[in-house]
Amino acid sequence: MAIIRACVEKMTGYTPGEAAGNPRTVKLNQNENRYPPSPRVAEAVARALGGLNLYPDSASRRLRRAAADLYGVAEESVMATNGSDEMLLLLFRCCCSPGDEAAGFRPGYAYYATLAAMNDVRYRPIDFEGEFHLPERLDPGRAKLVFLANPNSPTGTLFPESEIRRLLDAVPEGLVVIDEAYADFAGQSAIPLLGEYANLAVVRTFSKGYSLAGLRVGLGFARPEILAQFEKARDFYNLDRLAQAGAEAALRDRDWLEKTTRLIVASRERTAGGVARLGLKVYASGANFIFCRLAGEARAERVFRSLREQNILVRHFGNPGVADCLRISVGTDADMDAFLIGLEKALEQS
Amino acid sequence: MAIIRACVEKMTGYTPGEAAGNPRTVKLNQNENRYPPSPRVAEAVARALGGLNLYPDSASRRLRRAAADLYGVAEESVMATNGSDEMLLLLFRCCCSPGDEAAGFRPGYAYYATLAAMNDVRYRPIDFEGEFHLPERLDPGRAKLVFLANPNSPTGTLFPESEIRRLLDAVPEGLVVIDEAYADFAGQSAIPLLGEYANLAVVRTFSKGYSLAGLRVGLGFARPEILAQFEKARDFYNLDRLAQAGAEAALRDRDWLEKTTRLIVASRERTAGGVARLGLKVYASGANFIFCRLAGEARAERVFRSLREQNILVRHFGNPGVADCLRISVGTDADMDAFLIGLEKALEQS
Repeated sequence: MAIIRACVEKMTGYTPGEAAGNPRTVKLNQNENRYPPSPRVAEAVARALGGLNLYPDSASRRLRRAAADLYGVAEESVMATNGSDEMLLLLFRCCCSPGDEAAGFRPGYAYYATLAAMNDVRYRPIDFEGEFHLPERLDPGRAKLVFLANPNSPTGTLFPESEIRRLLDAVPEGLVVIDEAYADFAGQSAIPLLGEYANLAVVRTFSKGYSLAGLRVGLGFARPEILAQFEKARDFYNLDRLAQAGAEAALRDRDWLEKTTRLIVASRERTAGGVARLGLKVYASGANFIFCRLAGEARAERVFRSLREQNILVRHFGNPGVADCLRISVGTDADMDAFLIGLEKALEQS
Repeated sequence: MAIIRACVEKMTGYTPGEAAGNPRTVKLNQNENRYPPSPRVAEAVARALGGLNLYPDSASRRLRRAAADLYGVAEESVMATNGSDEMLLLLFRCCCSPGDEAAGFRPGYAYYATLAAMNDVRYRPIDFEGEFHLPERLDPGRAKLVFLANPNSPTGTLFPESEIRRLLDAVPEGLVVIDEAYADFAGQSAIPLLGEYANLAVVRTFSKGYSLAGLRVGLGFARPEILAQFEKARDFYNLDRLAQAGAEAALRDRDWLEKTTRLIVASRERTAGGVARLGLKVYASGANFIFCRLAGEARAERVFRSLREQNILVRHFGNPGVADCLRISVGTDADMDAFLIGLEKALEQS
């Protein structure tokens, strides 16, 4: 079709985990939070309803101020976006011209490659060494952007600050993007490194720890001189009034975040133990999911399907290297009990 | 800065109308609606709050179905976006490669040129003939996208369907984008032409007629084969649960839209009469604002400033050809009374 740009015409769209058709489904496939968000969110949204006829604050000032206070950075080092996905897209739009290169570690979040394709950027996957270590020799080539999720998905791996520093040192020309979608469960962040490294961008989301996947709010952190450029290319009114108010309220309710993440981390460890007792290899996770390996790809596929028939949705990736693995989001204790019973049955049948 | 793409580094960001610092300001500079949105919006948002921990429907199915029913098109001909701005950006991202050309009529919405700049696309303004007619000879050159707002901003001009057809016939290779941000006040749309013209895209917003500028929802209409391509490049979860629910409720409340737009249109005509009686030239408007011409640029600037000192914000554009004009959003009758009194005073002082 002559109207459509070639890079868009030839690309494949992103396929996220499926939505649940049945309200009784135990939905453990998109790393959503099974605890509700802070009750302050609904209160703040209700208050914001009165102003819907007027444009929102294009700079999301109150939300950014709350984030700046929390993370100890200047407001000019924070950008608020329509989900972290908008921030990831903005990184490509502002840093990469067609034909440029971006890189990211594998196995990792597949959406980085989709974003590269839609921007006519070549995406080079860099394989982890062994079971999910950064390669000893880090060579980003000509990559303008190098993506690492920390904790990583789907593996759950938490990289220590020393490894993040090693990566930052290895990419003098491009921007290292640390995607901290799951960092609320790990209690570790690269944001304090912004003072030392001008080539760092950190991306966070309200979809996981804050239980607001349905509200679409993300944050991007980088040096002010970088964000000032991004600002010009950002959708001017990217965040609606309800999302700004809700996210700010969630960010300010530290007790709620700490209480719910503690519950999830406890369930994660209990579930990991249960899965290991059933004979599967379970990887250490710093996130709100566990990643485990079964004996063979066909078996992983069968177990996935058997769980699905039991109305338990988990994630199975077809990619080489992880096709014998399953990723299971950590929900409430009741969800995880249902999962462990379902898994035992699935393993017997598969 | 080596990290930033040259086209972003050299561009200037968009400057919208200023926000009001003072709650008593009569804010007539951004064409916001001074009536509240349908009460159904708040009810729908309240109902949607329960699901915020889960990702929204990535396809915005319920909202798109409501729009498809209303406009008599297939659901596959409708896309829902984070404000119409996301749809406008998507048009550039999916249709234009760096170095391509886009065009739009002048005086028009300045944001099209900003979008072109951030996508490394050359933007060619095409001047209206006389007082805002489409040129007799329409030559889009090599433009991949040709933008026309109908009704147009800032002029308010409503182009009849015959003129839209003439434009569509003149652009066989590119896409004609009819931006119908203000069409709810005109009762006319190009959407029914989609069956005849494969090179048509129509963009609408909830920010004006539906009084939801603070919720950020827009709609894009085009042939299904075009939207299927856009779909791959669209942010997968672009619209949050509250925005989807609120916009759907607004769209279904036809009575509210008709009642409030009728009030605004009546105020517009009354205001236009009042402005004309003060000796200004007022252009016919199909939108929720009026556009009028003063005697000279310096006088327009002085009147703008005098109104501003009286806490009445209107819009003054510095661009050649319209620098002696003012654009005034139509609010409630009380707003317009305040404006007319303020204008009389400003004219005496200027």
